[in-house]
Amino acid sequence: MYELGVVYRNIQRAEAALADRLAAYGTSTVHEAMGRVGLMKPYLRPIYAGAQVSGTAVTVLLQPGDNWMLHVVAEQIQPGDIVVAALTAENTDGFFGDLLATSFQARGARALVIDGGCRDVKTLTEMGFPVWSRAISAKGTVKATLGSVNIPVVCAGALVHPGDVIVADDDGVVCVPRAMAAATLDAAAKREANEGDKRAMLAAGVLGLDMYKMREPLEKAGLRYID
Amino acid sequence: MYELGVVYRNIQRAEAALADRLAAYGTSTVHEAMGRVGLMKPYLRPIYAGAQVSGTAVTVLLQPGDNWMLHVVAEQIQPGDIVVAALTAENTDGFFGDLLATSFQARGARALVIDGGCRDVKTLTEMGFPVWSRAISAKGTVKATLGSVNIPVVCAGALVHPGDVIVADDDGVVCVPRAMAAATLDAAAKREANEGDKRAMLAAGVLGLDMYKMREPLEKAGLRYID
Amino acid sequence: MYELGVVYRNIQRAEAALADRLAAYGTSTVHEAMGRVGLMKPYLRPIYAGAQVSGTAVTVLLQPGDNWMLHVVAEQIQPGDIVVAALTAENTDGFFGDLLATSFQARGARALVIDGGCRDVKTLTEMGFPVWSRAISAKGTVKATLGSVNIPVVCAGALVHPGDVIVADDDGVVCVPRAMAAATLDAAAKREANEGDKRAMLAAGVLGLDMYKMREPLEKAGLRYID
Amino acid sequence: MYELGVVYRNIQRAEAALADRLAAYGTSTVHEAMGRVGLMKPYLRPIYAGAQVSGTAVTVLLQPGDNWMLHVVAEQIQPGDIVVAALTAENTDGFFGDLLATSFQARGARALVIDGGCRDVKTLTEMGFPVWSRAISAKGTVKATLGSVNIPVVCAGALVHPGDVIVADDDGVVCVPRAMAAATLDAAAKREANEGDKRAMLAAGVLGLDMYKMREPLEKAGLRYID
Amino acid sequence: MYELGVVYRNIQRAEAALADRLAAYGTSTVHEAMGRVGLMKPYLRPIYAGAQVSGTAVTVLLQPGDNWMLHVVAEQIQPGDIVVAALTAENTDGFFGDLLATSFQARGARALVIDGGCRDVKTLTEMGFPVWSRAISAKGTVKATLGSVNIPVVCAGALVHPGDVIVADDDGVVCVPRAMAAATLDAAAKREANEGDKRAMLAAGVLGLDMYKMREPLEKAGLRYID
Amino acid sequence: MYELGVVYRNIQRAEAALADRLAAYGTSTVHEAMGRVGLMKPYLRPIYAGAQVSGTAVTVLLQPGDNWMLHVVAEQIQPGDIVVAALTAENTDGFFGDLLATSFQARGARALVIDGGCRDVKTLTEMGFPVWSRAISAKGTVKATLGSVNIPVVCAGALVHPGDVIVADDDGVVCVPRAMAAATLDAAAKREANEGDKRAMLAAGVLGLDMYKMREPLEKAGLRYID
Repeated sequence: MYELGVVYRNIQRAEAALADRLAAYGTSTVHEAMGRVGLMKPYLRPIYAGAQVSGTAVTVLLQPGDNWMLHVVAEQIQPGDIVVAALTAENTDGFFGDLLATSFQARGARALVIDGGCRDVKTLTEMGFPVWSRAISAKGTVKATLGSVNIPVVCAGALVHPGDVIVADDDGVVCVPRAMAAATLDAAAKREANEGDKRAMLAAGVLGLDMYKMREPLEKAGLRYID
Repeated sequence: MYELGVVYRNIQRAEAALADRLAAYGTSTVHEAMGRVGLMKPYLRPIYAGAQVSGTAVTVLLQPGDNWMLHVVAEQIQPGDIVVAALTAENTDGFFGDLLATSFQARGARALVIDGGCRDVKTLTEMGFPVWSRAISAKGTVKATLGSVNIPVVCAGALVHPGDVIVADDDGVVCVPRAMAAATLDAAAKREANEGDKRAMLAAGVLGLDMYKMREPLEKAGLRYID
Repeated sequence: MYELGVVYRNIQRAEAALADRLAAYGTSTVHEAMGRVGLMKPYLRPIYAGAQVSGTAVTVLLQPGDNWMLHVVAEQIQPGDIVVAALTAENTDGFFGDLLATSFQARGARALVIDGGCRDVKTLTEMGFPVWSRAISAKGTVKATLGSVNIPVVCAGALVHPGDVIVADDDGVVCVPRAMAAATLDAAAKREANEGDKRAMLAAGVLGLDMYKMREPLEKAGLRYID
Repeated sequence: MYELGVVYRNIQRAEAALADRLAAYGTSTVHEAMGRVGLMKPYLRPIYAGAQVSGTAVTVLLQPGDNWMLHVVAEQIQPGDIVVAALTAENTDGFFGDLLATSFQARGARALVIDGGCRDVKTLTEMGFPVWSRAISAKGTVKATLGSVNIPVVCAGALVHPGDVIVADDDGVVCVPRAMAAATLDAAAKREANEGDKRAMLAAGVLGLDMYKMREPLEKAGLRYID
Repeated sequence: MYELGVVYRNIQRAEAALADRLAAYGTSTVHEAMGRVGLMKPYLRPIYAGAQVSGTAVTVLLQPGDNWMLHVVAEQIQPGDIVVAALTAENTDGFFGDLLATSFQARGARALVIDGGCRDVKTLTEMGFPVWSRAISAKGTVKATLGSVNIPVVCAGALVHPGDVIVADDDGVVCVPRAMAAATLDAAAKREANEGDKRAMLAAGVLGLDMYKMREPLEKAGLRYID
Repeated sequence: MYELGVVYRNIQRAEAALADRLAAYGTSTVHEAMGRVGLMKPYLRPIYAGAQVSGTAVTVLLQPGDNWMLHVVAEQIQPGDIVVAALTAENTDGFFGDLLATSFQARGARALVIDGGCRDVKTLTEMGFPVWSRAISAKGTVKATLGSVNIPVVCAGALVHPGDVIVADDDGVVCVPRAMAAATLDAAAKREANEGDKRAMLAAGVLGLDMYKMREPLEKAGLRYID
C-alpha cells in the first residue's frame, strides 16, 4: 500500500475557500454531514482544549522512533495546510516539539495530526499551535530511516489523501475527501440550520420522542411501558 | 440479567434532601463513607474539570452504536436526576451531544454518566452540563435497536438501581444505594468533621505515623529502619 | 531485586543547587541532555496542567491497594524532595489524597510521582501540590502490608535510586541519576542556548532540511522527489 | 452495593439438573437463548482451550492483591459449583494457583471465573481444572483484608447472584439468573434444534439472504447493487 | 471516505495463480517482500494456531454491533476469496459464528479477517475455517443498519481494496495490492531462496555481524566494546 | 540510567549449577522464594505453551523499530544464557525471527525475553526456541541506531543485571539477582518440599482455613457468618 522513500511535490489541494469554512462546523457536524464516515479513532486527543481548525492535508509517513520525515514534509507545507502524520507501527515517542512547530507555523501550517506522540506541550500551547496526538511523551526520536511525503496514508484508522480537508476540534479529527468538500460544506450548513430550531424546541421541553416522531417506530419495535 | 425493550415509569427515588446533600462531600469521601464500595471504574472521566454533582439515578441500557433509548429515557427524567447509561457491549461512539443535553437539561437532569462516548464537548462545557464518559468521540449513532429504561444496570463495573444516588466529581463516580443514602450522608459528614482536625495536625508537621498510631503495628509487621 | 520491609534513613541526595536548577529546562530537554534515557513511560500524567518541578527522590515501594508505606515515607521527606512511589503490581487505586498531600507539603515535598492512582485532585490542584499518576481514582486503600522506603525502585519503567533528581512537567517525568546531575545540567544549558538561534532561524522560514544539512544524507538514503 | 466481611452460608442454588445441562449448549447459544444479556466482558479468557462447563455460582469478593477470601469461599463450595471471584479494584495478580485448585477440586468445584489473575497454569491444565481469568501472573497475593462470600457481585461487567448458573467455554462466560435457568434451557434447546436445519441449508449453498428473507428489508433500508 | 449502503458486484480480483502461491511464504516474508508495508495491526490474532492462507479480498464494512452485511457479502464470495471485514467504530462483539462460517465455506471462502469479535471458536476450529479477529466474544449482533460491500476499507490500520491479496498466518495479516502481487511473489521467492544459505551459516555459528558485514557500520556509529 | 553505544564483554554470570536448577521450580515458586519481587509484568507472554527454562541473562537495550543490537548481543551469548531485550520506548515490532533464533540457538542461548514483538512464531515453535514477548508482529525492523549490550536494563518493569538468573514458564518471567541465586534455590526447594504435604491434605478435603489456621485471624478481622 505504502511507497517508501518518495516525496510528491505537486498535490492537488481542496479549494481553500471550502477547506477554510469547514472549521466553523466542527468535527461532529462535518462527520454527520459526510454520512458518518472518515473519522479518526478517538484515541487521538488535542494537546489543549478549545482549538477548532480546518485545512488541507499534507501527509507524511513516519517510521517508529524516527522523525526525519517531519523535516522533509515541512518544505511541502503551504499556508492553510494541516500536516497529517501516520506511522508504520504503533509508537508513542515524542516526534514533534516546539522547534518543528516553529518551523511548521512559519510555513503556514495550522495544526498537526499525528498517530504518535508529541512533546513540549506547554510551549505549543503558548504558541497556539494545536496538535492532535495519541500520546504526550518527552521521548526523543532519531533521524535515520526514510518514510514518504504526500502519499495516501492511514492515520488513526482513517484514510487520508494529500489535499483532502482535515477538520479537528475537541471532539476529534475527521477527513473530508477533496471531491466531497463542497457537498459536505453544504450538508453541514443545512444540518446546522436545522439544529437551531431543534435546540429551541428541546430547550422548551419538547421531547425528541415527539419532535422526531419516534413513538410509533418504538412501539413497532416492541417497546413496552410498565407502571 | 437484563430485560430488554421495557421502560419502567414508576421508580422509587432516594429522598431528594439526601440526594442533594451528598454532592458536597465528593466522590472519594462518599466512597469511604460507604465502606469503599459502589465505585465506577476510573476509566470514566469528566469531560471538563471541576464539576461536582449528586442526584437520583434514572438508568438506561443502550446497544452499541445506538442511542435510540436516550430519547426514551429523556421523558422519564425528573428535576434532580442524573442519567446513568450502561451498554450491552463495549463501544466508544458519541451517543450524546448538545441536542440531547439541551433536552436533558430542560427536563431537569443534572448530569450524564455513560459507559460509552460523548461528543460536542465544547458546547456541553459552555452549557455547564457535565458528563462522565469512557471516551470523547464524534462518531454518530443509529436509532434501530431497543434497550431498556429504569432497569438495574451495571455501568463501568458498578451496579446501579433506578433511584439510587449518584455522586460524581473529578475523582470519578460512585453509586449510593437508595437504602444507604441516609447512613452514608451521616458517615460522610462525620468523616469530614474529623478531617479538619487531621488536616490541621498534618499541616503543622505531625506525622500520620504518630497521629494514626502506626509505629507499633508497623514494627509488629516487621518493619526495620536502617541507618 | 526488591528488599521488602526496610526503611533506609540515610540516603545521599544529589546536590540541592543542581536538583533545583534542572526544573527550568523541563523534562524533554533534560531527557535529551541525558542522551535520551531515564524517562518514565508516558502513561504517567500530571493531575493538572502547567506544573514544572525538580527535586531529589525519596522512593517508596507500595503493595497493590495498600498505602501504608506512604505514611512511612512521609517521615523521610526533607525540603526539596519529590516522592517516587513504585508498585509491586499494576493497580490504579487512589493511594494518595489531600490529607497525605498536606503532610507531604508540610514536610517540604514538592511533588509526588506514583505508578498508581491518586484522588482528591480538585483539592490537590487548589493546594498547588502536583502529582504525576497513572490514574485518578476515588478507590481507597488499606494499611496492611509492608513495602519499603528508599530502596532503588522501577517506577513506570524507569529505575530510580533514592537521591536521584526527578524532573517533571506536562511532557512527563525523567530521572537523572545523582552522579549525572551536574553533567546533565551543563548539557541542558548548552542545548537551550543553541535552541534560541535555531528557533529564530526556523521562525524566519529557514528549513530544518537546510539548517541541519539533511539534504545530502536524505539523498544518500535514497529519497526521491516526484513532481 | 457491596457488604464487606460477611459470608452467607445458605444460598439457594439453581436446580442441579438445569445447571448441569446448560453446559452442552455453550456460552454463545445460552447468551442468545437469554436474549443477549448476562455476558461477562471478553477480556476474561480460559487458561486452556476446549473446556466447556456449567454449574451453580458461589461468589466471592476479593480486595486487590489479597486472596484471603478464596480460602473462605472454599468451605462454601458444594459439588457442581463454579466459583465466581470479583474484585473491588482492577488487579492482575495471581490470586489462584495449584494448591487452591486442589482444594476447590476436592470440594467438587468445576471451575473458577476470576476478574483477576491466575498462576500455575501448566499444573491447572494437567489437573483439568479450568479457569477463566483476566490475566496470567506469577505475582503472589497477601492474606490481610476481608471481602465477602456469597453476596451479589459484578464480575467482568456482569451481575452474578449466588446460586445463578454459570456457563463457560472458549467463547467466554455467561451468567444465567437462577429464575431463568429453566426457560433458558428450553430456549437453548429450541435454538439448537433449529440450527441443524439452517446449517445443512447453508452448507448446501443456500444464502442467509434467502433463508432469513433479508432481501426485502435490505432493499427497504436502501441497499443498492452496482455492477 | 466510505460510501454506505452499496454493494459492488464486479470487482477485479488479483490473478488466482498469484494469490494462491503467496500463502507458502507467510505473512512476515511477504511483508518484507513488499518493502515492509501493508501490515494489519498486531492486535488481530488467529482464533487457532497453525493456519496459513492467502486469497483474494472481498471487503465488507460493518456497523458496530451489527452483522447484517456479513450475509450480504456472502453472496459476493467466489472460491479462493478471503473476506475482510472493517468496522465504522471499535467494537468487539461476536459478529461471526459457525452458521456464517458454514455459508462462507460453502461459497468457497478460505478465511475471515475481521476488525471485531468472533464466536463459536471451538466449532470454527473443528471446521478448519480460520479467522483473524480482534476479540473472541459470545455477544450477539443485530441486523438493522447498512454498511457496504466491496468498497475500499481500512481494516486494523491497513487499506484493503477489493481484489487485493490477503496473506495470513500466526504472525498476522498483510494486504498485497493487486497490482503488486506478481512483483511481491517474485521478491518473496528470492528472499526465501536467500534465507536457506543464511540459515545454514547462522546454524553453523557464523555471526550476523560478519555475515551481514555490520562491524564497520557499527564502529562508525560509535559502538564501543569494554572489557 | 542507560549508557548508549556500549558492549560489555566481561560479565559475571551466576553459577551455572544454580542457574540451571532453578528452571525446575518454575516462575511462580521462584517468585515466592525470592519474597515476591523481581517479576516482569504479565503482558509478557510465551509464544507457545509449555516451555520452562532458566539461564543466565545477557542483556540488550534496543531502540524502537530497530533490531541492530540483537546481532551485536548474539556474539556475547554463551551456552546457558537467556537474552533479555529491553526497549527505550514501547514498540511492538517484530524484532526477532527465525534467522536470529537460529543464530542464538547455535550460540547456546536457551530463550529470548523481549519487551517488544516477535515474528516467525510457527518456525520458532518447530525449532523449540521459546520467546516471551509483548506482541507477535510481522513488522520488520531497521538496523540504524545503537543501543547497548550487557548494561543493567528494565525489561517489562523488572530490573535485570547481566549475569542474573532468568526463570520463565507459562506463568511469566522472573529475574533472580546473581547474589540471591543460591538462597533462592534453597528457599524454592523448601517451598516445594512443603507443598507436597499441603497438596495431599487439600486433595483429601482439608480446608486451607484449617491447614493454615486462618479461622482465628479471620474472626479477629471481623468476618461474620450468616445463615
